Amino acid sequence: MANEAGFIGLGAMGMAISANLVAAGTKLCVYNRTAAKAAPLVAKGAVQARTAGEAAVPGGIVFTMLSDDSAVRSVTEGDNGLAARLAPGGIHVSMSTISPATARELARYHAERGSIYLASPVFGRPENAEKKQLVVCVSGAGAAKERVRPMHEAIGRAIYDFGETPDAANVAKLAGNFLIGAAIESMAEAFTMAEKSGVDRLKLAQMLTQTLFASPVFQNYGSMVAEKRHLPAGFKLPLGLKDFDLVLTTASEARAPMPIAGLVKNRLLAALAKGREELDWSGLALGVLDEAGIK
Amino acid sequence: MANEAGFIGLGAMGMAISANLVAAGTKLCVYNRTAAKAAPLVAKGAVQARTAGEAAVPGGIVFTMLSDDSAVRSVTEGDNGLAARLAPGGIHVSMSTISPATARELARYHAERGSIYLASPVFGRPENAEKKQLVVCVSGAGAAKERVRPMHEAIGRAIYDFGETPDAANVAKLAGNFLIGAAIESMAEAFTMAEKSGVDRLKLAQMLTQTLFASPVFQNYGSMVAEKRHLPAGFKLPLGLKDFDLVLTTASEARAPMPIAGLVKNRLLAALAKGREELDWSGLALGVLDEAGIK
Repeated sequence: MANEAGFIGLGAMGMAISANLVAAGTKLCVYNRTAAKAAPLVAKGAVQARTAGEAAVPGGIVFTMLSDDSAVRSVTEGDNGLAARLAPGGIHVSMSTISPATARELARYHAERGSIYLASPVFGRPENAEKKQLVVCVSGAGAAKERVRPMHEAIGRAIYDFGETPDAANVAKLAGNFLIGAAIESMAEAFTMAEKSGVDRLKLAQMLTQTLFASPVFQNYGSMVAEKRHLPAGFKLPLGLKDFDLVLTTASEARAPMPIAGLVKNRLLAALAKGREELDWSGLALGVLDEAGIK
Repeated sequence: MANEAGFIGLGAMGMAISANLVAAGTKLCVYNRTAAKAAPLVAKGAVQARTAGEAAVPGGIVFTMLSDDSAVRSVTEGDNGLAARLAPGGIHVSMSTISPATARELARYHAERGSIYLASPVFGRPENAEKKQLVVCVSGAGAAKERVRPMHEAIGRAIYDFGETPDAANVAKLAGNFLIGAAIESMAEAFTMAEKSGVDRLKLAQMLTQTLFASPVFQNYGSMVAEKRHLPAGFKLPLGLKDFDLVLTTASEARAPMPIAGLVKNRLLAALAKGREELDWSGLALGVLDEAGIK
């Protein structure tokens, strides 16, 4: 059983991560609401579960990579949910970007039933997931983290441990997504001011992202913002709004004012109001062009 | 005369740049308002001018690295100013962070007298200048840029050419300084939200600046913001305010709304209102802690 696990949620991220776990020799039992999506994994040797609960066995490990808080709750709770089926001693490795409050509730729910909740959100887009280049954040019980470590190593390039508090890794993930959104808005303002002052925005982006801001986020989103290119969408606008709502709720609970978070949330809202829901969330930058009168 | 130049303004940046020009074999004539500052350069072989104008000869090259627009104008204009003394054919290499509007006026002033204005602001702190690691932005007449290039190569690690428009490099410099200020404010908001949610802000900064945001600006300012350490000051708060005033004026002239620039400017104002003028400008981050009730 040392190298067995379940995996629930085969979107673009879940699919790439599952494939890497299978490639690393994990005997994987997968579940997705739209069952047909599992076919490529089954072809590689994964077993397909008929229900989410079936992906879990007593004392086992199950990963979830789902769209939001309620999706994670719905597979975790109830008589046939993950918590009931993983007990005693099983581990729920929760990779979705969810609120710290939900993480705390799920940790409590598991603990009451004798299973263990591990927060384990990841940074990276689907192409990073395919290349095992995810940045994995983790928090929860030490022994559980050690047991899951070989699987985390099979999917990521670095693992950052935020301690035993169940929601700490979720807070770190929200802080990171907030900084990405803030970087998109900041670059949009800088490049638009430059363009309207007669400066080549592509040249400016090149200079900044090759030197002072030579990092993956600024290089990836910097070229999209500079080129006003927001398709194909690696992470769609409505998901960006969901994350910024989580950031602002977390900030409210913590009594930590975050004016830039409020500003970026309104940019995301405006983008959706204008029918841009199919764009990558970097499309929030178009609102800066709109306000500057650029068609 | 191929390897002769003048240099006006021996603050921390000007001193380090001058020393590298001398080390590269440039016969340098230096001037500083407080004359005693020139002594270390004279010891290395530089000649000391008694007036700013004396640093310029007809057809020569003079660098200026001064504190603000009016300081650059005062050494450029007038019968004994750089423009009059450099003509015919001399080049004024203006490295200060000044407004694009002033750059355009100075370029016109030089052109009317037969001398040439080259905008050449640099990115980097004094320790980067010492190591010849500056990022040099340049704009202006092509032949003048070519003539100055060997000297630019002696002081920087990269040269970015923004074309012939005299103020383009100044706009690029302001865009970059704006992005640094936006990054400081963004990290302050993220780390403070995390701290108040029970997460170790140092650990969070480490994770983000080793991965998604692994760039000089995020690493340098990220550790200062995470550690709440804003001394020693590489670039003091009043200089940050000066630059954000230039950013906002440029944005106004360009009709380009920049809400984050307005927000950061108010943080800088609040920091000065609270007597923080001796801190590094990353000290604007303390305002985020203040608002979150952290002592």
